[in-house]
Amino acid sequence: MSATRASLLVQGADATGIVAAVTGVLGRHGANIVSLDQYSDDPRGGAFFQRTVFGLDGLAAVRPALTADLDEELVKRYGLTWTLRDLSVPKRVAIFASRSDHCLLDLLWRHRRGQLPVTVAMVISNHPDTAEEVRGFGIPFFHVPSAGPDKSAAEAEHLKLLKDNVDFVVLARYMQILSGDFIERVGVPIINIHHSFLPAFVGAGPYAKAKERGVKLVGATAHYVTEELDEGPIIEQDVVRVSHADTAADLARRGADVERAVLSRAVLWHAEDRVVRDGRQTIVFA
Amino acid sequence: MSATRASLLVQGADATGIVAAVTGVLGRHGANIVSLDQYSDDPRGGAFFQRTVFGLDGLAAVRPALTADLDEELVKRYGLTWTLRDLSVPKRVAIFASRSDHCLLDLLWRHRRGQLPVTVAMVISNHPDTAEEVRGFGIPFFHVPSAGPDKSAAEAEHLKLLKDNVDFVVLARYMQILSGDFIERVGVPIINIHHSFLPAFVGAGPYAKAKERGVKLVGATAHYVTEELDEGPIIEQDVVRVSHADTAADLARRGADVERAVLSRAVLWHAEDRVVRDGRQTIVFA
Amino acid sequence: MSATRASLLVQGADATGIVAAVTGVLGRHGANIVSLDQYSDDPRGGAFFQRTVFGLDGLAAVRPALTADLDEELVKRYGLTWTLRDLSVPKRVAIFASRSDHCLLDLLWRHRRGQLPVTVAMVISNHPDTAEEVRGFGIPFFHVPSAGPDKSAAEAEHLKLLKDNVDFVVLARYMQILSGDFIERVGVPIINIHHSFLPAFVGAGPYAKAKERGVKLVGATAHYVTEELDEGPIIEQDVVRVSHADTAADLARRGADVERAVLSRAVLWHAEDRVVRDGRQTIVFA
Amino acid sequence: MSATRASLLVQGADATGIVAAVTGVLGRHGANIVSLDQYSDDPRGGAFFQRTVFGLDGLAAVRPALTADLDEELVKRYGLTWTLRDLSVPKRVAIFASRSDHCLLDLLWRHRRGQLPVTVAMVISNHPDTAEEVRGFGIPFFHVPSAGPDKSAAEAEHLKLLKDNVDFVVLARYMQILSGDFIERVGVPIINIHHSFLPAFVGAGPYAKAKERGVKLVGATAHYVTEELDEGPIIEQDVVRVSHADTAADLARRGADVERAVLSRAVLWHAEDRVVRDGRQTIVFA
Repeated sequence: MSATRASLLVQGADATGIVAAVTGVLGRHGANIVSLDQYSDDPRGGAFFQRTVFGLDGLAAVRPALTADLDEELVKRYGLTWTLRDLSVPKRVAIFASRSDHCLLDLLWRHRRGQLPVTVAMVISNHPDTAEEVRGFGIPFFHVPSAGPDKSAAEAEHLKLLKDNVDFVVLARYMQILSGDFIERVGVPIINIHHSFLPAFVGAGPYAKAKERGVKLVGATAHYVTEELDEGPIIEQDVVRVSHADTAADLARRGADVERAVLSRAVLWHAEDRVVRDGRQTIVFA
Repeated sequence: MSATRASLLVQGADATGIVAAVTGVLGRHGANIVSLDQYSDDPRGGAFFQRTVFGLDGLAAVRPALTADLDEELVKRYGLTWTLRDLSVPKRVAIFASRSDHCLLDLLWRHRRGQLPVTVAMVISNHPDTAEEVRGFGIPFFHVPSAGPDKSAAEAEHLKLLKDNVDFVVLARYMQILSGDFIERVGVPIINIHHSFLPAFVGAGPYAKAKERGVKLVGATAHYVTEELDEGPIIEQDVVRVSHADTAADLARRGADVERAVLSRAVLWHAEDRVVRDGRQTIVFA
Repeated sequence: MSATRASLLVQGADATGIVAAVTGVLGRHGANIVSLDQYSDDPRGGAFFQRTVFGLDGLAAVRPALTADLDEELVKRYGLTWTLRDLSVPKRVAIFASRSDHCLLDLLWRHRRGQLPVTVAMVISNHPDTAEEVRGFGIPFFHVPSAGPDKSAAEAEHLKLLKDNVDFVVLARYMQILSGDFIERVGVPIINIHHSFLPAFVGAGPYAKAKERGVKLVGATAHYVTEELDEGPIIEQDVVRVSHADTAADLARRGADVERAVLSRAVLWHAEDRVVRDGRQTIVFA
Repeated sequence: MSATRASLLVQGADATGIVAAVTGVLGRHGANIVSLDQYSDDPRGGAFFQRTVFGLDGLAAVRPALTADLDEELVKRYGLTWTLRDLSVPKRVAIFASRSDHCLLDLLWRHRRGQLPVTVAMVISNHPDTAEEVRGFGIPFFHVPSAGPDKSAAEAEHLKLLKDNVDFVVLARYMQILSGDFIERVGVPIINIHHSFLPAFVGAGPYAKAKERGVKLVGATAHYVTEELDEGPIIEQDVVRVSHADTAADLARRGADVERAVLSRAVLWHAEDRVVRDGRQTIVFA
């Protein structure tokens, strides 16, 4: 019987002895710790975050007893929260796209090459353009038009498609704003790629704004979606050098390379439970 | 007699034949073109920029005739403006600093190593802390305190020191805001280093803001100073990667390395006439 | 009648007046210079390189007279060589690939997005794996197996396919060594992507070597192919940061992103006549 | 009584339960773990590395009992080795320099700004040029000439100066080769900065070689010194972009910026016990 890989995320108020408590519980159940990342934002009374990956023979059988112990040691004793996940079961993702296909295709490629440990449950787009290509990857494609300012019908259809089918959603240059109601009802994390180096150039048309302002670098930002537009916790960012000779279209073209790289890193890290949300920020154990 | 290096900047409305006109005039006067950079922001009716570096034996003697020809060919015929500079005469600079010395020292140290072709005419600071060190480089240091909200006395003293003595001013983490009146009366370009990736985090305390927002990169921006704070034309920018584990102080420390690198590049390029202002933007022939 | 874009490359021994001569000829024929890049590796008796892009109404009609003038002014007077190319006619390229498809697909995808101004005449592979995908892009795919050490039969078939059909060849992770005879007979430039930061880790298996040596960055190099393996003129290089925690497979995965980015830049620059070979080196007017 | 910061490095053959054993021992002695980094190069029978930073009230008093426990739990039970260091006591370093001062001055600056937690015990140079500057930082300077091929007299003097006075040595562009005998007798780690991206351009004159080869990036490598020249374990590397227009002198100038940045990072990480040697490689918990 080979060992199952699992990840354990622990989060809460810092206190002396937490790491020992976590590793002690794991050790008593025969887990072999493969990697451990830990971070305290302030040694005196701050917040504590720990990601532990371990191998354990027969995880399924051990799980009830392990759960009871973790509750006893971490919840009751330290008031922490924890999440245990079997890493051999990939997270299920829905990718939302519009006409622009570079982020979408990059994710599908990486997935096919075995570089993204997720199950791509479906692609949803408000344009039919990429249907054939997506289905060529063997992935279901759903066209949900979103004409007009009232998105409620489209969002209702989205919710029907997503319900119980996905563990997170990726907006791969999906050029529609999601309602607060939708974000709440979908109930899973949503990752967006914003085509600028946030918080510079929030909102629409960032490359045109960047050109006008004469910046020497353009960037991209992957973040979790919250009700406040472009204000969600940042997961990853990167930039690329540009010059006065680049037009706004050149900036968009160069930026597209950064967008797809940044988004794929964010999706990978989320899929591997490497990202912990902490208010408006993230802890990334990459 | 060895050749003198000179640079010729030409700027104005684009038209057919300008490059040929410029190189034709230079050729007739025996100039040997060493490098030529040219940029048109729109081939149809846009703006034209050209930087030409050439060697010419006896530039001083030839200059009046060359000037007449350039006026004839470029100003009268094409309505362009031009600037000719003898590169063997370094530009004179005054560096303004406050307590933080990393940008100041980096400039002085590069200058001593022969990497900044300028004459550092003076260092002006509102704090006496760096006096000894600056004078150790053989450079005059003037302490001009700037207590209280009324900067007019300090600015009057600045103007007296700078008048006719410098070709440009560098604010090397000088933490005071210059009045519009001062900017106008000083009459030479002023380069500032802003400790953020503009236009993100304008104003004071950018590293604290960056920490709070959870960004994954911090940056620095060198720009020309205009009356509108943090809105002047950007010369150069760069970033460095940070993580959740970096405190605001860590961001400041990492950012300091970027600040000094970005500022020194901007000063070098300005010193070599590689930067052309174009409204709110710059053309950088680097 | 709209203007045709053309590029003129001029190369040879440096002398006073070349730039003026080139721009003078172009001006006399009504060309509007859009961009001009010039480089002299040594102002005293070195080599001279110039790339000029211009617009000219009715280039085809003017071409004979322009050619005569360029020969007169540049060849006879200065002993230079020149190449004139109509940029509205894209270069034709054959892409060679093996099993690894990331570089191949990246080129095809950029081409489809209109970011690579070339005509992809064919893809040749020693494995049939990517046939369907390539043909899905509407591009001919030829499977030419290369079993055994004797490559002469395969190379003969390659030459038959390529003859008069392509202007350059790209080896997109084609894992076969080309014979000197083939390189000579194919008669067009060949661009290769080497999966390391040359000259570190020449030859096969660079990621395994990089892992063993414990390097902190891995890179990729695009270069022109010469008879001497991994010694041809370098066009472009880049690197990505790695750590001790990356396995050799991780290095290969991270390196793949750099490979495709570096190769696509090299192909773009070659397609736009931005790369000039100069012995073992290149001048890149990017 | 405030808590003392200490670091514990543990290294050896991997086995189930090590992390729990380490954290258990620390917990029983009242240590509060501030950060924990762990790495196994192969979960099945590979090597194990762990760096733990913790706070402990009255470390000095607890140390004997803690030591006994660590020996019992880690050495006897798991056959591991461990090193415990009080981080409030900075490591003592000697910096070796030659004429080139950019790496030396960068280290001294950062030290003065409080960014390098070391005690700079002395600077040793084979040239007197930097004496005044070094002493201006309040640091002892020793001039030890190294004329001729026989370095034994100079090395004897070095050993006398260093004996019991330093915890590590930094070669800040010290252009002399150390004998194997010296390396062995000095008995402390030696960090060197090599002015190239190793393993490209080993040996002397790397920038000239890089120029000749036409590379598009130049780099620097900080590594531990071993008897085999330029083959010691790499701590850190970085690169900077160059072009055909850069002369070998330009490469050296641009490279100097990378050298000082790379060396200062390596020294900082070594000072904070973040670097673990593992044969020809390093584990860097940065």
